[in-house]
Amino acid sequence: MNDELILNLIDKLAKLPGVGPKSATRIAYFLLDAPTSFTNELSSAIIDAKTHIVVCSNCGNTSSTEVCYICSNPKRAENVLLVVEEPRDLIAIEKTHEYFGKYLVLGGALNPMAGIKAEHLRINLLMKQVADPKVEEVILATNPNVEGEVTASYIARMLAPMDLRVTRIATGLPMGADLEFADEVTLGKAIEKRQEFGV
Amino acid sequence: MNDELILNLIDKLAKLPGVGPKSATRIAYFLLDAPTSFTNELSSAIIDAKTHIVVCSNCGNTSSTEVCYICSNPKRAENVLLVVEEPRDLIAIEKTHEYFGKYLVLGGALNPMAGIKAEHLRINLLMKQVADPKVEEVILATNPNVEGEVTASYIARMLAPMDLRVTRIATGLPMGADLEFADEVTLGKAIEKRQEFGV
Repeated sequence: MNDELILNLIDKLAKLPGVGPKSATRIAYFLLDAPTSFTNELSSAIIDAKTHIVVCSNCGNTSSTEVCYICSNPKRAENVLLVVEEPRDLIAIEKTHEYFGKYLVLGGALNPMAGIKAEHLRINLLMKQVADPKVEEVILATNPNVEGEVTASYIARMLAPMDLRVTRIATGLPMGADLEFADEVTLGKAIEKRQEFGV
Repeated sequence: MNDELILNLIDKLAKLPGVGPKSATRIAYFLLDAPTSFTNELSSAIIDAKTHIVVCSNCGNTSSTEVCYICSNPKRAENVLLVVEEPRDLIAIEKTHEYFGKYLVLGGALNPMAGIKAEHLRINLLMKQVADPKVEEVILATNPNVEGEVTASYIARMLAPMDLRVTRIATGLPMGADLEFADEVTLGKAIEKRQEFGV
């Protein structure tokens, strides 16, 4: 019975993570009040990102180029590879300014209950990367929760026969937390204090 | 140094009310993972609402037609007019299913500190509406905070010489609260228990 256009906008906004019906209503009216330049930019930003962003063929990060800005940066150390679940975890690590090596973005964590098995993650891409003799260390930076720990164990076991140092970020992070929401100091500390991974 | 397209999207999302940099990052990656159909729909919903929504010439509500769906509904009572600050307050009232009359959306509240004076509100539209002899009662439903109370007093004083019942929604709502975030039961009760406005 309300205006269809506004209801439709509220309905779409309410599907975003962390946005309930009341926040969606607030955002919708904010957008109606905002300058047209802003709403056009927001709308274009969504479409542009969606259209042009691909998965980096080298590390699994999101990128607007075939190989992402980290993989194509010659200044990044090639002897260390940091494994994360999602691109947003990579962003969280980058913000600490404590890590200067390369990444491997798995695209999730093992979760048999939800049907997420090894073949759904970028394990093949990881194995391809570690086959490079320049790689000396693999840092496992999956989330410190059940799925992340299982995934770290799984990868550590796969890498055990290889001549690699396999480490896990320090559990300065509280268990059960989400890596992307950790503060930068804690996260930086966790990288700095990483220890040998005991299988 | 991060991918420009993603940074741009996060930057735009972080400007929305209630969305900080971390929520914006989460929403951005959610959008990158979402089906293209959804991102296209969201983007279109923003542009469509922004392009086609106008202010109802009769009551000040947002509408995709020159006269809004409430003003053009012949079943709505014409003897009572409920005055709110913003269209989202109107939506909150509608959700209570306790009110069947018409509305007047002021477009804000008096706030001399922020430079919002009577001429910035739709007081003229209100006076035009109450000039209709069919109107018997004006319910003042501005927010129960300083600006809303001042606005209610101002309007009550303007309407005092006229042959009208002027009421204020009951203060079942806690003072300092935002009307749009009140739960529907409390808000419905507040309309039901409205009392004569003492200037």
